[in-house]
Formats: sequence, structure tokens, C-alpha cells
Amino acid sequence: MQRTKIINLLNSKQEIDIVLVKGWVRTRRDSKTFSFIELNDGSCLGNMQIIADQALDNYEEIKKITTGSAISVKGRLAKSKGGGQKWEIPAENIEIISMSPESYPLQKKRHTDEFLRTIAHLRPRTNKYGAAFRIRSELSYAIHSFFKNKGFKYIHTPIITGSDCEGAGEMFRVTNLELDNLPKKDGHVDYSADFFGTESKLTVSGQLSAEMFALALGDVYTFGPTFRAENSNTSRHAAEFWMVEPEMAFCDLAGNMELGEELIKYLVAYVLENCKEDMNLFARFVDKNLMPALENILTRDFARLPYEEAVNILKNAKNKFEHEIEFGKDLQSEHERYITETYFKKPVIIFDYPKTIKPFYMRVNNDNKTVAAMDVLVPGIGEIIGGSQREERLDVLETRMDEHGLSKEDYWWYIDSRRYGSVPHSGFGMGFERVIMLMTGIRNIRDVIPFSRTPGSIDF
Amino acid sequence: MQRTKIINLLNSKQEIDIVLVKGWVRTRRDSKTFSFIELNDGSCLGNMQIIADQALDNYEEIKKITTGSAISVKGRLAKSKGGGQKWEIPAENIEIISMSPESYPLQKKRHTDEFLRTIAHLRPRTNKYGAAFRIRSELSYAIHSFFKNKGFKYIHTPIITGSDCEGAGEMFRVTNLELDNLPKKDGHVDYSADFFGTESKLTVSGQLSAEMFALALGDVYTFGPTFRAENSNTSRHAAEFWMVEPEMAFCDLAGNMELGEELIKYLVAYVLENCKEDMNLFARFVDKNLMPALENILTRDFARLPYEEAVNILKNAKNKFEHEIEFGKDLQSEHERYITETYFKKPVIIFDYPKTIKPFYMRVNNDNKTVAAMDVLVPGIGEIIGGSQREERLDVLETRMDEHGLSKEDYWWYIDSRRYGSVPHSGFGMGFERVIMLMTGIRNIRDVIPFSRTPGSIDF
Repeated sequence: MQRTKIINLLNSKQEIDIVLVKGWVRTRRDSKTFSFIELNDGSCLGNMQIIADQALDNYEEIKKITTGSAISVKGRLAKSKGGGQKWEIPAENIEIISMSPESYPLQKKRHTDEFLRTIAHLRPRTNKYGAAFRIRSELSYAIHSFFKNKGFKYIHTPIITGSDCEGAGEMFRVTNLELDNLPKKDGHVDYSADFFGTESKLTVSGQLSAEMFALALGDVYTFGPTFRAENSNTSRHAAEFWMVEPEMAFCDLAGNMELGEELIKYLVAYVLENCKEDMNLFARFVDKNLMPALENILTRDFARLPYEEAVNILKNAKNKFEHEIEFGKDLQSEHERYITETYFKKPVIIFDYPKTIKPFYMRVNNDNKTVAAMDVLVPGIGEIIGGSQREERLDVLETRMDEHGLSKEDYWWYIDSRRYGSVPHSGFGMGFERVIMLMTGIRNIRDVIPFSRTPGSIDF
Repeated sequence: MQRTKIINLLNSKQEIDIVLVKGWVRTRRDSKTFSFIELNDGSCLGNMQIIADQALDNYEEIKKITTGSAISVKGRLAKSKGGGQKWEIPAENIEIISMSPESYPLQKKRHTDEFLRTIAHLRPRTNKYGAAFRIRSELSYAIHSFFKNKGFKYIHTPIITGSDCEGAGEMFRVTNLELDNLPKKDGHVDYSADFFGTESKLTVSGQLSAEMFALALGDVYTFGPTFRAENSNTSRHAAEFWMVEPEMAFCDLAGNMELGEELIKYLVAYVLENCKEDMNLFARFVDKNLMPALENILTRDFARLPYEEAVNILKNAKNKFEHEIEFGKDLQSEHERYITETYFKKPVIIFDYPKTIKPFYMRVNNDNKTVAAMDVLVPGIGEIIGGSQREERLDVLETRMDEHGLSKEDYWWYIDSRRYGSVPHSGFGMGFERVIMLMTGIRNIRDVIPFSRTPGSIDF
């Protein structure tokens, strides 16, 4: 007999004569003649109530079943007589698959997020983390659906890369040299003996590669892991995280902003529609303001303003900022939060940043002072998207590379794309973990990644 | 005015008064009073025929348009009077976005795969590689759809890992130490100063992490990059490739085989249904036998036989093999190919391999001689799936780890999962690039990866 997942039974429209369920015991309590078992199989937040009658052959054993044990149950899916749930299974047979010892760390009580991080291999068995990782899965699917519906092609850009200066942050080195016995040449490591014959790193962005494909296939996107070797122990940064990077040929900055706003709204609508039960947990227990905040994103037009205007707003703000702001300085997290949370009270897109603080590949505006960059900021999170129209003019690009001290030899292929069939194109990067944080109200990036990597932390 | 993608126009049911298309010129030829342009925008294999009348203002310029140039065209979508295509656009206006110089490497002629690998940034602009990467994108989506429909949750398992002995192959090291100035302790590298405070590597498989989630959420899968630092320059191995790894709680080896066969058939059916035009290119120009081969996979039950039986078949074969085979030896590529291509002439699942040649986590069978492993072999490719039922018995697992000389301390979390709520579970890994090779007839893995990484090769 085939097991049925609990999500399907809880959504059943009618009683079913006989079903087989398998899962893990969340709690068990005894009445005089019954034992009530709350069974969860991870398919959804909800448990199936199992009623074990004392008449069962192995009732003495059943009465010893502990939290975390695995069991298999056969019985009728019946309308529940109790108040708490619609369906229950009066068991005809209960088989104990494995008994959890009393040392099982997830006994029925509240555990701190900090403690649960130390047992990241077990925390998806809790209500909160089960819900978080189901939502992560649904959001991944939503991202693929969104782009698929629009005719975007999904591209797997390289993780190991020889380009080391995209300017997006510190990079990890990848090597298969024996570190205890490094080959040297002229006093320096001889990378010609390394796997790729040269220095190689973990990618910080798939953008440059994705551009090559946008200039061939039109609309493309990446969705994969990216890395930063930055020694920052904040709640918003991880050394390994997933990023979504669409790249569109024949698209300018305005189109780029449209796509960013549309994507975020799509994802909010998607989880509200498809993850109701799990979302409800976060709205009740994690962030009381979650639903109004998501409604606000869904229903209101994102504010759009040039960086220069944002700077003026900040200068005129009564707030005291830790970092002074003036034209030419990068917006700090506190500035972004003020703009989106205090001033506009809704998502904001800031565009046309000073070219001096932005990478070489962003398109220089006619003022020759700003570039066609844009950041999307949302309340509670801050920057969630960063993107730009790319510099498609060969001569301007080469000048910018010189200004940034980049080797045109290393980037010969990137430059080639502006030599042959260059067209206006745009794209952005969206941090996937920030999206999950936005949707769930979870405020530490370590808690939305199955096994997070941060400085000093590589367990599991 | 919004541009329309060429795929939508080619599928149009009716003429349209005015459309805007943008793309890259594949070819141009002149008649007395017209110039005919084949325009491609990457949305599909097919080109839109543009007819430029000499009456156009910039006809002199248009006559100079080169292969690879980018243009923007306005005009009526009209039934074609010529024979080759259904639709064409008599241009009312042609704007040249950028002119490609004569040095553009993709002139209209046949290029070798070897040459195209040296311009991997441009090759998706060719018919063959455009088709290959559209199929890659469609197959990715198909994989997510398949698992989503079955209620599997998608898990992002870590790329950087501290576990270094899963036995799946050589691993790349990840570090942010200064290699020219390594911190040492007792004559060895002092990893306590490294980013994670210990040695770290690039993952060879997400399986062990995925198991933790299967034991919480039920059915899960990973789909992400994996790495091998093996110095093997074959047409089937890359240092970086994508792998699909489902993992199912409450599932035995038979259920695992079911899922593998169902997945492969689903993917074949999916590309045949959804990638007709691109698939046709491969069937015509790359592998004449492609369609019958795929039909064979789709319509026939996969053969299933124990390893021992496979060994007997090989021993009795008239073929001369380079490697001798006997019970206890691993099947070599030549053996696998013989079994699937020559003997059964269809996909084959071989199961119950000797435990001596398989990793510690595979479930020991009652004979104590074999483990519940399975490999799926397909004609033309060889092994495409490798999997097993996992050892869920704590004592057996610990014994196996001892036999393999693995540190139980390092794997405390993995062992924990057998201590608390352990259940029978199974899963497998499917090399995504091999799937693409199977579907397209492309026989070199370098040609199905956007920018492939192999020994000495990290360009782009």
C-alpha cells in the first residue's frame, strides 16, 4: 500500500476508508483509553491527529512513543470529533519505525534561533524552520515560473572564475595545489601548476557571463550560488548565498526598473496565494506586521527618484545619521532605510548614481556624471535589488575600464560583445535570501539558508 | 512601441498591422530592388525574414549591413510570398543599432566545435548552440516542474563544505589565505586563520545535506553545481557541472528506481513536446539516430538486473573488453555501454552492487555482501543516474564508517539523523549535462555548458 502525504489528507474533501501515513511524532498525550499522536511528515505545517485505541496489539509500546520517533499508521481518514482539526485517523495499525531517545534535542518547548543554528541538521523538523524552507522552495519555483512565463532562458554561469576584479567584493580562492608544498617561481606561487593553470576564484556574480547570453538569446537569467569572502559578521551577510540575475537585450533602465518591481510583486503575490499556512505562522509568531507590509508592497507603486533627489531628502531629514551624506557618497544602510521606511513608507527605486561609486560596466548618462544604475529598496530589508543599464558603447566601455585600471586583455571576450552586434541591455541582481527574509519576517540570513556559511562557521 | 519577440510572430495566427522587432542579422542578400535580411533574436531557432525595399530612406546604409549587426525593424507582419517561411516583414523602417565589423568570427559558414569553444561567448549566437542552450533552459525547468508536481521541496545545499571524504572524488580547496604568505603551525598550514577556521572544499555532492532535509520535509531535491578536481581530459568530465539529487524519506531501492525511470522518461517527453524546433536541428544535423533513440527510452520499460547478473552477462559476452570483469570489480564504461547498447539495447538499471566498491552510506543488504545501490545506464551515454537506499540503521552505519576510516566526530550531525527519527530513505544523483547530451546527441560535455571548466581551461 502506498503512503499518502499528510498535506493531501488534510486537504481531502471526503472520508477515505483506508490510508497509510508515515511521519515523525511531534507530540503524544494519553487519555484513559486512547493515545493521541500528532504526526508530521514535512509535506506541510499541519499535523495529522492519530488516535491509538488501547485495543491495539502493541498499545503498551505505543504508549512509550517519544517525540521525534518515526511511525507508520494505517487507518480510516475520518472527520474529527475534536475541535482542533478537521480530519483524524483512528489507527487500525501502528508500526514503530524508529524510537527517538530522550536526548532528542527538539522536545516540545520553545528553542532560540541561536540554539537551533547549532543543530541546523534538525531544525527543519520544527514548525518555524520547516515553514521557512518550504517557502524557500516555493519562492525558487516562483522565480523560475516568472521568467519562464516571460520567455527568459535560464543560464548556468560559471561558479569558478578567472576574472578577479568585477568590483563586487572579496573573492575566495579555488585551488588544488598542495598548500603545504606550494610550487614557487620567483618567490611567488606558481599558478601555472594549479588545476586551471592560473589563479581562480569563486564567482561574486554571473552578470558578465549572462550578458554574453543576453546578446545571443535575448532575455536570460541566472539563479545560482555566489560568494563573498568578506569578514563581516552581520545578520544580513553570508559568505555563500543565492542570487537571481536577469539580463535583457534591447532593454533600458526604465524597462529594468519595471521588471524589478514586477518580479517582487509577483513573488509577494505568489507566497500569499501558495504558502498560506506557512505564511500564517510567520505573520502570527515572527512578525506581527508581516501581512500589512507585504500588502503595502503588492498594492502600491514603487517610488522612483534619482540618487540626487534622495541625497536632498536625506540632507533635509531631521534624522541624525551616523554617516554624513552628500552627492558622490554611497548611500549607507541607514540612509536606505530612512528613504524607504520613514520617508516613502513603501518600496523605492533610486536611480542615476554618481559614476565614481559604481562599477565600470554601468552605462554613463549624458550628464557624464551619473550612470544608469538603480537600486530597489524595501522597508525592513533595505536594498533587495541592484542593477543597471550596461555600457554598450565600445569606446566608452574601454575608457571606463582604463579609469578602473582593468586589464582589457583579461576581459577581451566581454569587450568583444560590444564590438559585434552590441545593443542596449540591462539587468540586475536580486539577493534570494533577502527575498525570503522579506517574505517571512526572519531577520537573520543564517536562518533562511539550509546550512549557512559565515566567518568561522562551516558546520554540517 | 514595445518590441515583439520573433518566436511570437512566427507563431502568429494572423497578419498584424505593425510590429517592432529587434535582433541580430544572420544573413543579408540583395535582389535588384530589395534587400532580404534574416533576423534572429534568440527567442527561437527560426529567423524572421525582413524585406527592405530600395525606397527606404537609408537603403544605401541597409545594403551595407553585415552579418552579426543589430537592427530594429518596424513593419507589417505579412504572409510570406516566398517559399521558405510563413511570415515576413516588409520593413517600413529599419534602424541600425550597431554594425558588426568584417572581423566578426561567425560568418556564414560551418565552424568546428573546437573553434567555437574558443569563442564560447559568441557561440550561443549560432543555430546549434542557441538551440543547445535553449534546451538546457527548458530541461532545467522540466526538472523543477517534475519535482514540484510530486510535492518535492527544492533545497539549496552548501557549495563550500568542511566534509572532505564523501568518497565521490577529488575536491577543490577554498581559501582566502594569502598563498604567498601562508600562516604556519608546526610546519603545516594553519587553517585556523582561514575564513572558516578550518580546511574547506567545494562540494562533490549535496546528498548528505539533502538527507537531513528529507528526514524533515519528506521528499526533497537539490539542483546545483558540483565539482571534481580530477585531471581527466575526457569528453564526459568537467570540473564544474550541475547535478540533480532527489532524496526521499520512507522510500526503498525499488521506489528509487521507479523515480529515476519516471524522471528520465518525463524529461524525454518534455523536450520532444516543448522543444520541437530546436530538437529537430539536432536530429537532422548532429545525430541522425536521435529521435529513434529517444523514442526507445520513452516507450520501453528499463531493464532491471542485479550487478551479479550483469557480471555474468559480461563474462559470457563475445566482446573483448579492455578491463576484465569479475564480481567485486566496478563496471567500467565499456561494460556499461555493452550492457545497455549491445545486450539490452535500451536503458538498464543495475542494482545491488558489492559493498566493497561503494560508499559508506549505502544500505547493506541481507547478504552482507552487496548494498542497495543502483545505476541507470542509457545507450549512447552510459551512466546517467547513480543512487542507493541509504543505511538508516545507526549501528550498521557506524560500523561502515569505521570500515571506511571515517571520523565519526566530523560526521556527528549525519549520525544524529540515524539516532533521532531514522527512517528508510533513498535518493540518487543525475548529472545534468549528461541529460542534455542524451537529448541533443552532443557528445562533448564542453559543448553543453555555457562556459565549461576543465583542466587548464577557465576562460571567460
